[in-house]
Amino acid sequence: MKKRYYPYSEFIRDLNRLIKIIDKPFDTILLIARGGLSIAHILSEYYNIRAIYSINTIGYNNRDKLNKIEIFNLPNLKNSKRVLIVDDIVDSGDTLYAILKLLKKKYPNIIFYSASIFYKKTAKITPTWYINQTEDWIDFFWSVDLKDKNDFNDR
Amino acid sequence: MKKRYYPYSEFIRDLNRLIKIIDKPFDTILLIARGGLSIAHILSEYYNIRAIYSINTIGYNNRDKLNKIEIFNLPNLKNSKRVLIVDDIVDSGDTLYAILKLLKKKYPNIIFYSASIFYKKTAKITPTWYINQTEDWIDFFWSVDLKDKNDFNDR
Repeated sequence: MKKRYYPYSEFIRDLNRLIKIIDKPFDTILLIARGGLSIAHILSEYYNIRAIYSINTIGYNNRDKLNKIEIFNLPNLKNSKRVLIVDDIVDSGDTLYAILKLLKKKYPNIIFYSASIFYKKTAKITPTWYINQTEDWIDFFWSVDLKDKNDFNDR
Repeated sequence: MKKRYYPYSEFIRDLNRLIKIIDKPFDTILLIARGGLSIAHILSEYYNIRAIYSINTIGYNNRDKLNKIEIFNLPNLKNSKRVLIVDDIVDSGDTLYAILKLLKKKYPNIIFYSASIFYKKTAKITPTWYINQTEDWIDFFWSVDLKDKNDFNDR
């Protein structure tokens, strides 16, 4: 798999493209931790939305339970009508699929949208809005900038 | 109040200073939304911590209830032993103070630390670790970079 670095400057450029294609209103941002954290931060500031919640998942991949996703810390969405779920990348799509299934069952009257920066076409679900289709391994700035800085300092 | 822009490059430089002064272990990161989102993202990647939760607050400032803080979406911390609470700035300190008070009561056996990038010396509580003391109004990159980009495009 090709590996590429995704810097902050590209992130802002992509979010600028994302806000131009998001054509539905929403009152809540639900981020999938950890990947959706930075996206959620900037979008919540841009749209001035304070109802910003996180959800945690653990993916298992063992012989018995292939692609089992455990979801926890489900926020209370009783005051939400339209929720935008954000993540950095929709890869297999398993996580987003499982979260949507759970949330739609628990909150049948809420409309859910989803947005990501990257999307792999082999994913089992397509987010409502995404910016880049990729086959690559993405080294996001939030994963490497601080580590790289410290690698550098150690030299 | 003096106003200053806080760019991403300075943020990484400050987080690099922060990780050098954090001298206690922790197993959980609890972010105060929205300010703590980006910090939590990068620190959770750096420390490889997946137990990253968010907490929401609303601050009221009316005649009857001065500085009343409403806290909601308290995560379940039953598996946590040492929790690092992060926020961008400890200003009045009211939010951090109220959160710590609530969490220490609910989880008397958990050790709580706190970290912020900015701290005002008039705050009623000092975070365990902070980087900059300031009197200024900080325009964080996550609040302005996308808006500025779009202001620019509108010209």
